[in-house]
Amino acid sequence: MEKNLDNVEYLALSGGVGGAKLVLGLSQILAPEKLIVVANTADDFKHIGLNISPDLDTIMYTLANLNNSELGWGQTKETWQFLDALGRLDQETWFKIGDRDLATHIVRTTKLDNGETLSQVTKELCFSLGVKHQLIPMTNDKVATVVHTKSGQSIPFQQYFVRDRCVPKVRGFEFQGIATAAPSPSFLKSLESPKLRLIIICPSNPYVSIDPILRMRGVLDLIAERRIPVVAISPIISGQALKGPAAKMMEELGELASAIGIAKHYRTLYRDMLTGFIIDEKDRRLEADFTEMGLRAIATNTVMVTLQDRINLAQEVLRFGSRITI
Amino acid sequence: MEKNLDNVEYLALSGGVGGAKLVLGLSQILAPEKLIVVANTADDFKHIGLNISPDLDTIMYTLANLNNSELGWGQTKETWQFLDALGRLDQETWFKIGDRDLATHIVRTTKLDNGETLSQVTKELCFSLGVKHQLIPMTNDKVATVVHTKSGQSIPFQQYFVRDRCVPKVRGFEFQGIATAAPSPSFLKSLESPKLRLIIICPSNPYVSIDPILRMRGVLDLIAERRIPVVAISPIISGQALKGPAAKMMEELGELASAIGIAKHYRTLYRDMLTGFIIDEKDRRLEADFTEMGLRAIATNTVMVTLQDRINLAQEVLRFGSRITI
Repeated sequence: MEKNLDNVEYLALSGGVGGAKLVLGLSQILAPEKLIVVANTADDFKHIGLNISPDLDTIMYTLANLNNSELGWGQTKETWQFLDALGRLDQETWFKIGDRDLATHIVRTTKLDNGETLSQVTKELCFSLGVKHQLIPMTNDKVATVVHTKSGQSIPFQQYFVRDRCVPKVRGFEFQGIATAAPSPSFLKSLESPKLRLIIICPSNPYVSIDPILRMRGVLDLIAERRIPVVAISPIISGQALKGPAAKMMEELGELASAIGIAKHYRTLYRDMLTGFIIDEKDRRLEADFTEMGLRAIATNTVMVTLQDRINLAQEVLRFGSRITI
Repeated sequence: MEKNLDNVEYLALSGGVGGAKLVLGLSQILAPEKLIVVANTADDFKHIGLNISPDLDTIMYTLANLNNSELGWGQTKETWQFLDALGRLDQETWFKIGDRDLATHIVRTTKLDNGETLSQVTKELCFSLGVKHQLIPMTNDKVATVVHTKSGQSIPFQQYFVRDRCVPKVRGFEFQGIATAAPSPSFLKSLESPKLRLIIICPSNPYVSIDPILRMRGVLDLIAERRIPVVAISPIISGQALKGPAAKMMEELGELASAIGIAKHYRTLYRDMLTGFIIDEKDRRLEADFTEMGLRAIATNTVMVTLQDRINLAQEVLRFGSRITI
């Protein structure tokens, strides 16, 4: 079959903040029909009666140029009157919902209650906000991450992540509902599309953002059948996560808090799924270790401060992906 | 039985804005255990997934000194970021929910969904906001006002009232659910309390605020059994309503848009329930007409601009009520 480069698709698997940065870069160089972004929904939860999808919203706001770059989550030009009034009514306010952000949750909840799927709702929200690229939830079913801690407590993810500020030491994760959750139809369609050329695993937390996506039934098998490159970008640079608790989790789980540790995690869980790995230029000395592992790796700048950084990394990812043969 | 004035109760039946003003006046001269306020809930509705109780909230915010005196509804120091974001998501924004007000609806909805009654929820909200007087919904059941218009359309009340700005001409009202709605337990308890000395019908819209309260099963009979004074304050002054569509409705329904019309409405529907009527001093010339009707009436200032106006009218109401013998 002749490869028509005008007729290819790229699939990005993403969590929140870090992943959204790369997704924005990809959206700047790929036409809407060429990029499919699948977001983790295992940290979705119901809070004060609202259906909240943190990763979907972070990516959607980022693509709509509405994200709050100071906070890293929520909407730009946000205010907090609702939260203040909620506190006045003696309610818990640890989960910070801004006045503008709230509209998204209200609309999502109403539409879900009316029987729409999360995929449909996401499509409509994206349409309203002018997001042209395809953003789809990993599943329309309920999956809920529970954090098992070393103290023996099991904590719903957002409580661990936001309320407890990732302080409890992690023993492991459980994705309730993952065994029966079906990948969303658009996700499946993308995995089965003859146009699909590359799967990009964004620089997101492997444990709580990427693992849920890959662990849904059928996903790994479909990826293996495709025989196309799967490239991951390390969320760990010089042993540290730019954002979020990935490095802390790795240490607590007894894994090596480094790009190598990330690659080993994916290798251990998903055998030979990974065909390429992108590390930061500060970790260039690790390239030899990857060669030893039998995994193609390149080093480049992965710290995305400016929009151009995001575009540059996106270009590196596509270039690297096109060079890998399976 | 000896009358102990330290051990009496007053029951006020009220709609939104006008009623809330008198209720505030009453709350300034009556200790919390002596005043029971029953609010109309027939204009409650479900909107964007939220349980909204306009009259309860107006009274609650008024008693909490949180009401928005400029708008006449909603909270003071309100902002509209949520509504703006909601519009951005292509949703209807005709019902203006402020960022602070929204917290009340979210908490109410969550608690109702958790199985609490509207009475319990109202009690908890009042407690959080420091409202000491007893504010209770007329019922914990669902009653929904529908406006039948002369064009043949039937419109849910808030759509008529807010979205359509009371423009459609009214043919009549229907209170869906009223036949099976039970007065709330605290309302019944108050009607049956041996301490009850006076029932006050606030200067609210008779058609859509007071009628639903009086039409619930058992209410009129209980009032009749008590043989205590029932005093109404006219919401119409010089043929006009200070606020809201009462005068317009009266004209469209072929009734006299005056204090006399209000009294006749109550007389027609509720026989001899009404024992006293308070009209504005500007309508003093009508006193003779009331005498002719066989209804005791006094004229006083009923325009409540300042807090002192509210207190003065409340004192007039109690004084007048104490002079009426059944």
